[in-house]
Amino acid sequence: MQDPKLFALTPGEPAGIGPDLCLLLSREAQPHPLVAIANRQMLADRAKLLDLDIQLLEVGPGRWPQQPAPAGALFVWDTPLGAAVAAGRLDPANAAYVLETLTRAGTGCLNGDFAGMITAPVHKGVINEGGVAFSGHTEFLAELTHTEQVVMMLATRDLRVALVTTHLPLRDVADAITAERLERVTRILHADLRDKFGLASPRILVCGLNPHAGEGGHLGHEEIDVIEPTLERLREEGMDLIGPLPADTLFTPKHLEHCDAVLAMYHDQGLPVLKYKGFGAAVNVTLGLPIIRTSVDHGTALDLAGSGRIDGGSLLVALETAYQMAEARNAG
Amino acid sequence: MQDPKLFALTPGEPAGIGPDLCLLLSREAQPHPLVAIANRQMLADRAKLLDLDIQLLEVGPGRWPQQPAPAGALFVWDTPLGAAVAAGRLDPANAAYVLETLTRAGTGCLNGDFAGMITAPVHKGVINEGGVAFSGHTEFLAELTHTEQVVMMLATRDLRVALVTTHLPLRDVADAITAERLERVTRILHADLRDKFGLASPRILVCGLNPHAGEGGHLGHEEIDVIEPTLERLREEGMDLIGPLPADTLFTPKHLEHCDAVLAMYHDQGLPVLKYKGFGAAVNVTLGLPIIRTSVDHGTALDLAGSGRIDGGSLLVALETAYQMAEARNAG
Repeated sequence: MQDPKLFALTPGEPAGIGPDLCLLLSREAQPHPLVAIANRQMLADRAKLLDLDIQLLEVGPGRWPQQPAPAGALFVWDTPLGAAVAAGRLDPANAAYVLETLTRAGTGCLNGDFAGMITAPVHKGVINEGGVAFSGHTEFLAELTHTEQVVMMLATRDLRVALVTTHLPLRDVADAITAERLERVTRILHADLRDKFGLASPRILVCGLNPHAGEGGHLGHEEIDVIEPTLERLREEGMDLIGPLPADTLFTPKHLEHCDAVLAMYHDQGLPVLKYKGFGAAVNVTLGLPIIRTSVDHGTALDLAGSGRIDGGSLLVALETAYQMAEARNAG
Repeated sequence: MQDPKLFALTPGEPAGIGPDLCLLLSREAQPHPLVAIANRQMLADRAKLLDLDIQLLEVGPGRWPQQPAPAGALFVWDTPLGAAVAAGRLDPANAAYVLETLTRAGTGCLNGDFAGMITAPVHKGVINEGGVAFSGHTEFLAELTHTEQVVMMLATRDLRVALVTTHLPLRDVADAITAERLERVTRILHADLRDKFGLASPRILVCGLNPHAGEGGHLGHEEIDVIEPTLERLREEGMDLIGPLPADTLFTPKHLEHCDAVLAMYHDQGLPVLKYKGFGAAVNVTLGLPIIRTSVDHGTALDLAGSGRIDGGSLLVALETAYQMAEARNAG
C-alpha cells in the first residue's frame, strides 16, 4: 500500500441512484481519502430517506483530508444546487450543478489535487433540456482536458475490452474502421496499459471486423486491407498485438488467459461478453485523457433512487480500478 | 427414457479429428444405437494409431441395430473411400466420399431410418478442390431436403443463440435485416423450439441491430423501422418475443434466466458470449430442416488427427442435444 492519495467521486444526477451509491459505500472505510463533489444537503436528505447514518464531513480547496474517512463518514465538497432535489424526479434546473461537479473533479485532477476521479451516472437528456449541449461524461472530460481522441474501455476484475468505435449505428461501423483510427486507438490503449496499469509490455488481442475475421477475404476485406497492415506496422515498433482474430474464438479462456486487453472493432462485438462476465460489476475507463477517470457502467436508474434496492458492485470496481491506476502511474 | 432410436453420426473429413472423436466416444455406451457412416478400414486404422481397442460392428440398410452398442464398440455403415487416408493429410480424391456419407445420413433421416444426424467437421476447401461446389453442411442438407430457409443456432447446455444473418461481411448486415427475413427466421426458431425442443410457449429475447438497440433512433433506425413492427406483428399471433434489447444488457443472467433462446441479428453479436460460456462445448443446430441435425462447433483440426490430444466435449453436447430433440419431437 502506498501513501493515501485523494480521489474525487461525482455522484452525478442528483435524482438518480448516484447519491445512494456514494452513501451506501461510505458505510465502510476506503483505503484512500475520497471526496464526494455534490450538494451536502441533498446527500443528507438522501441518507435520511435511506435510513443511513452517514456523517458528512465538509472539505474543499485548501482543506483537503490527508487520511481516509472512517467507516460511516463521507468527505463532501459542497456544491450549490439549482433547485431542491426529489429522488426519482429529473429537473433541468440542476443541469448546471451536475456539470459543475464534473468541472470541479476534472480541474482538480488536472491541477494535482486529485489522483483520479470516479463518476456515477448522469442523465444526458435532462442536461440538454437544461440548455447545455452535452453528449456524455467522456466527451465533456475530453473537452475540459483538451484531448483530441479518447478510447472507451470496459473492464471487470480480469478482462479488459477497449473499442475502436463506440456509439455508431452498425451500418456506419465498417467505414469507420480506418487505418488512421485503428492506429490512434491502438496507440492510446497500449500507452495507457503501460502508463496507467503498470504493464511493461502489454499483450493485446485484436478482433477482426467480419465474422471469422473475414476468413481470408471470403467474408469481407477489411482485415486484409486495413487491420492486418496496421497491426503489422505497430508490431514493428515492438507492440505485442495478436490478431485480427475471430471474435467468437478470441473470447474463450484459452486465448484470454494470456492477454492484458482485447481490442474490439465495435460496441456489440466486445461488450456482451464483458458484461456477461462482469455480472453487473464492470467499470468504464476512459483512456487517452491526461487524468485518471473511471465510471460505473450503468445508468441513473431513477425508479430505484431512495429505495435502497441497488447493487454497488460496479462503483466498487470503479473505485478499485482508479486506485490501482493511480498507484501504477505513480510507480511508473 | 423412451425406446432406443437409431441415430446417424458422420465423422466428416477423414483426415481430420472427426474419426478420432467417434472412436474416443465409443469407449462408453450410448443411450441410443448410433451408426457411424464412414469407411470401416479408415476407422480401424485410426483406432490403431490412437491405440484404441474399439470393435467395429458392420450394419446397414435392412440390418440396423435395435439396441445401443456396448462400451468399446461402434456400429459402422461402411462407405467406400476414393483413396487411402493419412491422418492430417487432405486428399481431394475423398471429396465424393465425404458427401456420400452426408447423403446417406440425410436420406436416412428423411426416410425414417434415423431419428437424427450428428455431424463432425468437414473441410470445405478440399471438397471444392475435389470438383464439387460445396459451401457447408448446412447448405448441403438444405438442398438435400428441399428446404428454402434454414436458421443457424448454437447452444450450450443452458443458452441457445440463433442468428438472423450468419456468414456475411459486417458491412452487409444492416441491409440484410429486412422485415421479411426477420419474420421467416423468427417463425422457424419459434416453431422448432416448440416442435423439436418441446417448449410449449418459447420465450425469445431479440437483440437490436445497433448499440443500445438504437437508443430511440439516436444510434440507428432499424429497430424502429424494421425490428419493432415485425416483432409486434408476430406477438399478435401469440409469440412471446422480448425486445429489441441492447445486446450488452440482454446477455446478463437477469435477462437470460427467463428465456428459452436469444435471437441475435448477426454472427459476432451473438456467438462470442455463447462460445465464452460454452468453454469449447457448444453445439450447432440447424433449424428449419425437416430432419434433426446437430453438429460440433469446431473445425477439422488436421494437425491433431491421430494425436489423441482432443476434447470431445462439443460432440458429446451435439449427441445429447440430438437425443433430446428426437425425444421432444416424438412426445409432441
